[in-house]
Amino acid sequence: MSNSITLTVASLQRRVEAILRNAGLNAIQSGAVARVIVAGERDACKSHGIYRIEGTLRTVKAGKVNGNAKPELLPQDADAIVKVDAKGGFCNAAFELGLPVLASRARTHGLAALVINEGVHFSALWPEVEAVTEQRLAGLVMCPSYATVAPTGGSKPLLGTNPLAFGWPRKDRPPYVFDFATSVAARGEIELHRRAGKPLPEGWAVDAEGHPTTDPEAALAGAMLPFGGHKGSAISTMIELLAGVMIGDLTSPEALARLGTTTLAPSHGELIIAFAPEAFAAGRGDPFARAESLFDQIVGQGARLPSQRRFLARAKSESEGIVLTAAEIAQLDRLLALGLAAVT
Amino acid sequence: MSNSITLTVASLQRRVEAILRNAGLNAIQSGAVARVIVAGERDACKSHGIYRIEGTLRTVKAGKVNGNAKPELLPQDADAIVKVDAKGGFCNAAFELGLPVLASRARTHGLAALVINEGVHFSALWPEVEAVTEQRLAGLVMCPSYATVAPTGGSKPLLGTNPLAFGWPRKDRPPYVFDFATSVAARGEIELHRRAGKPLPEGWAVDAEGHPTTDPEAALAGAMLPFGGHKGSAISTMIELLAGVMIGDLTSPEALARLGTTTLAPSHGELIIAFAPEAFAAGRGDPFARAESLFDQIVGQGARLPSQRRFLARAKSESEGIVLTAAEIAQLDRLLALGLAAVT
Repeated sequence: MSNSITLTVASLQRRVEAILRNAGLNAIQSGAVARVIVAGERDACKSHGIYRIEGTLRTVKAGKVNGNAKPELLPQDADAIVKVDAKGGFCNAAFELGLPVLASRARTHGLAALVINEGVHFSALWPEVEAVTEQRLAGLVMCPSYATVAPTGGSKPLLGTNPLAFGWPRKDRPPYVFDFATSVAARGEIELHRRAGKPLPEGWAVDAEGHPTTDPEAALAGAMLPFGGHKGSAISTMIELLAGVMIGDLTSPEALARLGTTTLAPSHGELIIAFAPEAFAAGRGDPFARAESLFDQIVGQGARLPSQRRFLARAKSESEGIVLTAAEIAQLDRLLALGLAAVT
Repeated sequence: MSNSITLTVASLQRRVEAILRNAGLNAIQSGAVARVIVAGERDACKSHGIYRIEGTLRTVKAGKVNGNAKPELLPQDADAIVKVDAKGGFCNAAFELGLPVLASRARTHGLAALVINEGVHFSALWPEVEAVTEQRLAGLVMCPSYATVAPTGGSKPLLGTNPLAFGWPRKDRPPYVFDFATSVAARGEIELHRRAGKPLPEGWAVDAEGHPTTDPEAALAGAMLPFGGHKGSAISTMIELLAGVMIGDLTSPEALARLGTTTLAPSHGELIIAFAPEAFAAGRGDPFARAESLFDQIVGQGARLPSQRRFLARAKSESEGIVLTAAEIAQLDRLLALGLAAVT
């Protein structure tokens, strides 16, 4: 590709971190957010890569995130719960602080939960479940977002796109990982259809009166639908209960009410559950070896494991570097030079 | 209704227990299984009511369950894991033994897990999540079954119908409860279509070559599909990993290989996770009151909470009794008189 530039993963990390530092984020916040942005770019998840920097700066500029937050571990009576107060900063920094404690508690007790409170959402959950699997633990992560999805049978936005992510560690290869919105589609996909002037597939959304629609504008004014009908709606409601209500943090309607817009990152908490497979198996076979047999039977019949496309892109980026266009590099330079002035 | 007979819940419990005792089940197994059968009948879940007695006796007669099993609590190093060996009996008796310990551990540690090993499947999971919510705990329950569902993109039965159930306690009213198969349909529904000579809705199943089919016979010879496409397939795979592999018990393909048929109840383990909402909230609001506000917003827009039909039927049964037809009563009498000789 002419005019393209190849960077190592480490060098892109330095660049993104410098942009965020320059825009006023402290080292803890910049490092954590940059790691997730670079992971997205490295895995060819362009929608979660450097494209996100501008939105991050916009949320900082709007005063909706504390760029100087130092997350803090809170003492808990219940010893399998690890609580981190994100202090109004991004959830990612709070997660990085809590992870080693979570891992240690999961090994001691068999399972443990990390609760993040007072955080601002940033990006996907797969970097977090992957980090849990690097500790030889299985991880289940969920969080509310802001009210954009109607419960099945309803007509008004109430639930968030409420992502659910899970990871299982594998030896010498990337983990089994899924991470998806519990809505049929991500809100960004509806926005992409709107910009492209393309109708939505049926079953994605209802209009403001609760009628099925394929018009992206009508969908954005109405509500998205949960995946899998009443089953997805029930799972999404469970996420509001466990990762909103139960942990004493915002539900999706509360997050939207506080923020007043869906164009900035919402505040919410997060629930991360870690399981120690060897403690659960307790001598009844090697859970990691047995899982490989299950994966072989999935792949052996021509089905795919989730996240494989990402892992292929990652291997390529790690050996050959990350390729950015000249325009992307120019945008990085612009963001570095202008800081918060680069966004409106 | 002419010829119908009305029984109290307690009196039906005594009848069903007597049938099971008479067929050779011990008091622990009979009581636990009868409670679940009567709960199904009471809630107008006919497919999980007294209709199940004959299948239970068939599994006993085939020697695939230990009707004399006394489940046993196993000591664990990891103190948030409670393990019960079902000793080849029905999972329900093992659950009843483990529940008080699970509840106590969840209160101490914030969350805890009950693992059932060496159990035989019986009936739905909602009686178990409801029992967890009666302890003022939220509960998440899952288990494999036997291989009847192809992973998305595949063509061969590998996953089970792998039910997922969740419950959240509500004050002075039935809990928020969902319990569903992670397949599009339950296997019983395909069987009902076959008997009625009706084609299946599209998207339920593939034939033995992996092609979509609406023919129930072809579906039973092929594979069912997960609900919600790749998302449901991923959740079902997670259930195999957590509630099969991780707990050192059978996966769905292993359960089918051991049993050799889908006409008897499969052996498998079970994973029950209990959360103590007050420990998680830790002073950040009353999680039970906040949950009511969320439920109000669901119901207020015309959507329904899951399980409401069951709870209405329950209230009616508890105040007016359970109505059985004369034929049903005759069948109960026949099962009581003949015991295992009543089934072939």
